[in-house]
Amino acid sequence: MDVAGYIEDDRERFLAALKEWLAIPSVSGDPARAGDVRRSAEWLAAYLRGQGWPTVEVWETGGLPAVFAEWPAADPAAPSVVVYGHHDVQPVEPLEEWDTDPFEPVERDGRLYGRGTSDDKGQVFFHTLGVRAGMAASGAAAPPVTVKLLVEGEEESGSVHFAELLRAHRDRLACDAVVISDTTMWSADVPSMCTGMRGLTEAELTLHGPDTDLHSGSFGGAVPNPLHAMAALLAALHDEQGRVTLPGFYDDVIPLTGEERELFARLPFDEASWLETAGNSLAAAGEAGYTTLERIWARPTAEVNGMWGGHTGPGGKTIVPRSAHAKLSFRLVAGQDPVKVQAQFEKWVEANTPPGVRAQVTIPGGGVRPCFSPIDSPGVAAARRAMERAFGTEVLFTREGGSGPEADLADILDAPLVFVAVGLNDDRIHAPNEKVETRLLLKGAEAAAYLWDELSEALR
Amino acid sequence: MDVAGYIEDDRERFLAALKEWLAIPSVSGDPARAGDVRRSAEWLAAYLRGQGWPTVEVWETGGLPAVFAEWPAADPAAPSVVVYGHHDVQPVEPLEEWDTDPFEPVERDGRLYGRGTSDDKGQVFFHTLGVRAGMAASGAAAPPVTVKLLVEGEEESGSVHFAELLRAHRDRLACDAVVISDTTMWSADVPSMCTGMRGLTEAELTLHGPDTDLHSGSFGGAVPNPLHAMAALLAALHDEQGRVTLPGFYDDVIPLTGEERELFARLPFDEASWLETAGNSLAAAGEAGYTTLERIWARPTAEVNGMWGGHTGPGGKTIVPRSAHAKLSFRLVAGQDPVKVQAQFEKWVEANTPPGVRAQVTIPGGGVRPCFSPIDSPGVAAARRAMERAFGTEVLFTREGGSGPEADLADILDAPLVFVAVGLNDDRIHAPNEKVETRLLLKGAEAAAYLWDELSEALR
Ligand SMILES: [Zn+2]
Ligand SMILES: [Zn+2]
Repeated sequence: MDVAGYIEDDRERFLAALKEWLAIPSVSGDPARAGDVRRSAEWLAAYLRGQGWPTVEVWETGGLPAVFAEWPAADPAAPSVVVYGHHDVQPVEPLEEWDTDPFEPVERDGRLYGRGTSDDKGQVFFHTLGVRAGMAASGAAAPPVTVKLLVEGEEESGSVHFAELLRAHRDRLACDAVVISDTTMWSADVPSMCTGMRGLTEAELTLHGPDTDLHSGSFGGAVPNPLHAMAALLAALHDEQGRVTLPGFYDDVIPLTGEERELFARLPFDEASWLETAGNSLAAAGEAGYTTLERIWARPTAEVNGMWGGHTGPGGKTIVPRSAHAKLSFRLVAGQDPVKVQAQFEKWVEANTPPGVRAQVTIPGGGVRPCFSPIDSPGVAAARRAMERAFGTEVLFTREGGSGPEADLADILDAPLVFVAVGLNDDRIHAPNEKVETRLLLKGAEAAAYLWDELSEALR
Repeated sequence: MDVAGYIEDDRERFLAALKEWLAIPSVSGDPARAGDVRRSAEWLAAYLRGQGWPTVEVWETGGLPAVFAEWPAADPAAPSVVVYGHHDVQPVEPLEEWDTDPFEPVERDGRLYGRGTSDDKGQVFFHTLGVRAGMAASGAAAPPVTVKLLVEGEEESGSVHFAELLRAHRDRLACDAVVISDTTMWSADVPSMCTGMRGLTEAELTLHGPDTDLHSGSFGGAVPNPLHAMAALLAALHDEQGRVTLPGFYDDVIPLTGEERELFARLPFDEASWLETAGNSLAAAGEAGYTTLERIWARPTAEVNGMWGGHTGPGGKTIVPRSAHAKLSFRLVAGQDPVKVQAQFEKWVEANTPPGVRAQVTIPGGGVRPCFSPIDSPGVAAARRAMERAFGTEVLFTREGGSGPEADLADILDAPLVFVAVGLNDDRIHAPNEKVETRLLLKGAEAAAYLWDELSEALR
């Protein structure tokens, strides 16, 4: 029996088990649900044992538990792959906007509805079927690579203990690649793989002027106004080309390759509808020389998220205000280091603050590193082949604007990331009526089955 | 008997009467004190009748009453002069910071303490003595010009009915000059006259971007950020020389004359101490080519008084915000028209708002016109001679940064303004322990007595 046939045969059993798991309300953000998150971990562990995984463990953290399972390859020289996902889910409020109970999953019109169907229990679960289907098709008693499943329980509440968990188990998690199944494809008709996520660093800037608000009749025009200084600084943060002006900001950026740009361009992207999701009067704008998709996926940004100072209440108040404030964030891409960018920003502010104004920069935390795997890297190339076998069509590439625990996986496990996922942007993850396309979930299982073959060749 | 001798003789009676008036708590900003403001008007009217003024009337307004008194010159061809002051006073809170009761005026160390001693009852009152002293010295039964005293009752609460009052009585207030006695001199040792007050116009600017706050992971770098647009706009409001960039902004400005600049420069101005009143780390800054005094008195400004948008609460929020806001005010000088500047600002915003951002400008009211009388104009030159006779020393010139009802007087009565006042910047008007230097009050009376002589020549 081939992989596709096995999956077709197993479909009902697979969905029935998934629904059982989905019924456990493992909302990590709700302290009252901590017991449910634990139940969810234990359910998964029991299921994996039932499926024959030789090693299954519930790993404690300072918070909510993760599940680890390992199925070693027969050949001790075969590569090892960590598969990452999470078993906790987002809160379900507002509950009244759900058409059916978020924790009583139902199939309807080829879709499975319920909290966690797409993000991320459904996507974790297709790997369990993929491993079995692959072994059934090959007749082997073990996958061709050592598969290490790591299913986190705190992703939706910030993965606060995740780096610590990775460091504590670094030896057992040693691997040649990390497969992430917690993202999306371009669309149901256009299978695609993500190759990177932007990182992030934030900063708060305060400019101090006079000791108190001054009357502008007496002082206006003869002393520096911190709001003017703030406007000048923030206006100077971008040049006429929309490029960020911090010296050195682009030095470490890994440029887009011609191939990646060409593949991005083949995605059926309707810029007008995309702009409509943001607001009707909006025009696309950003760094010159790049398309919208390139700008949001593969180019770094500096963004002012908030700004305030002086009189902001009703009516007028003719003052030279004592201070001005801004909150900024920088989206970072492949190659950039948040800590380095923080230093660049601090230095730039110091160099550009006018006399009579005192600048103060606060950096809240170390930021999030970007992550990136080139299209032609062995892991990505292998996963691309597996996806193309499953979907029977060309696979395109995307990146993602946001970022989660992926950078920690890449850095602490020191392994390349490979994103294999079948979620869609309209799955309404984090919103009422979350769903997954059942057909895509099964395609995911099929791709996962081929993936071990492809990776066993590619990573050897 | 000469003017100075008459004033010396009358000193105790003058101060006793003034104290009686000061004891009436005519706080126009406090609705509970409306009766006291009326009492204050009636007290002044009765006093003026007692002093022999041929016409004395209490003028009603939509709010609190003013007092009008007229002493016609014997010669029907003599010029007429309106003397403006106000009989209402500022609130006295915080009361516990007063060393003595604000409404029980006391003399101590050559000063008279109490609310209204300097602003403005004391300065109105020296005119009553000045008129009598002048007539006593000349032996005439009437002053050499027709003196029309107009004492407002709502100055400290915004002069809301003042323009209406002026229009209603325009004929009776017809005059060749308006003498304003509601300002200050440079210092007790450096008598000076004000020649102008800056005007004001305000504007609120809103920039609209996306329909809602957008996630910067998904949109950042590819759509316009209204905070960036606001920073760029406000940064472009001044050029490198600190000049306001609105096209036409300086077109109507009456430039400083060499004489006025030279006289400003002779004022003993200690820029370091002035800066210390604003804040220690401050440096003077403003339009290139002008001194600090020229900048605050005689040059127009654009000032951002407040600015806000996006996330301003604790922590970070990685958004492209939907809108940005700013409140601005423009200080205007001699020759400028607030309504014209408002139009210049609106046009400039329209021309400089980037695509994808929608700008909205709100103008709260018509603004305040600047007022100005050149040093060599007949009224100012006459008052300068009167002040120099009284003080026995050279009189210098200042302007003031703020502005009150003066522009209405100049415009509606269509007459030049002449500022004759003896208040000091350390009189603590609007603060606890307001005082006036008794010696200066009497010098004010003396200058007022000479003023009618000088003006009768100058304005004929
Ligand atoms: Zn997820
Ligand atoms: Zn006053």
